[in-house]
Amino acid sequence: MASLVIELPAWVDEVVSSSGPTPDDEARMALTVRLSEENVARGGGPFGATVFFEERLLAAGVNLVLTSGLSIAHAEIIALMRAQAALGRAALARPSLTLFASTEPCCQCFGALIWAGVRRLVCAATTADAEAVGFDEGPKPEAWVTVLERRGIPVQRELLRSQAQRVLRSYVERGGVIYGKA
Amino acid sequence: MASLVIELPAWVDEVVSSSGPTPDDEARMALTVRLSEENVARGGGPFGATVFFEERLLAAGVNLVLTSGLSIAHAEIIALMRAQAALGRAALARPSLTLFASTEPCCQCFGALIWAGVRRLVCAATTADAEAVGFDEGPKPEAWVTVLERRGIPVQRELLRSQAQRVLRSYVERGGVIYGKA
Repeated sequence: MASLVIELPAWVDEVVSSSGPTPDDEARMALTVRLSEENVARGGGPFGATVFFEERLLAAGVNLVLTSGLSIAHAEIIALMRAQAALGRAALARPSLTLFASTEPCCQCFGALIWAGVRRLVCAATTADAEAVGFDEGPKPEAWVTVLERRGIPVQRELLRSQAQRVLRSYVERGGVIYGKA
Repeated sequence: MASLVIELPAWVDEVVSSSGPTPDDEARMALTVRLSEENVARGGGPFGATVFFEERLLAAGVNLVLTSGLSIAHAEIIALMRAQAALGRAALARPSLTLFASTEPCCQCFGALIWAGVRRLVCAATTADAEAVGFDEGPKPEAWVTVLERRGIPVQRELLRSQAQRVLRSYVERGGVIYGKA
């Protein structure tokens, strides 16, 4: 039995533990954006994500593409995999999860969040913000927000957008690799 | 340092080793469909995938959603993660990979293959075939084949389609769980 392993840096949960309570969407997004910022400080991509199950933080993730060498390892995927690992087999019953993403999902994470039982999506920076600094968000369906909403996944956009935009810009200003680029 | 782990059943590489040479697309797809069939025999989802780097088989995968409890664990994702793990950090330079999929990719794998350095996609069963037996392939962009081709990823469809269709049907006839269904 071989296995595929993605190492999770310990600092992610340390940041979560050292943060204050997250009673509302704004506090949850503030933590999510902070994770993206801390990832940049450690040489990672400028993206963070968190997953909440009702009022409870279930999992946090950051973009680990560069350290893992795996293109799947976007922040949303890491957070959703961790959430499902925490839920165990119950994950396949598709509980009602809320995904917070510091930037709107790319074409890969757009698809993945649908299968993962996400029932609400909250985003900070927009697709255009990511593309403005050079990231490629890929081919999502036209009107992707409407597509999600028709599937029962309401989308809230631009919560703490300017903070998340600052993190995207700071990554590029530091000379960060735009690894998603074709 | 925690980690995310996806266990790979040993039989996948045993099937690969016990198969004959794969000198052309048809032989490669025959192996890919065989993996999907063997997965059904072991209670897994009816999907297989292989990744070739030039003429060399780099990685094989099957759908591991049910055993892993992770919705990301589609056959294509497993094969692409394994291929990237085999390539190491070179994976991020986006080598020219060919992905064989026993069924056309869902909305998640459609996006993931773009970031993974896939430069050619070969499929057996169609999206409609999967949906005809009850699977949800999710919201891909309209004209998703054209979208991939415009990104430099030519798509060959319906290679050994009827064999792959039989595997999809056999899964449903055995009472297999349609876990991707919303």
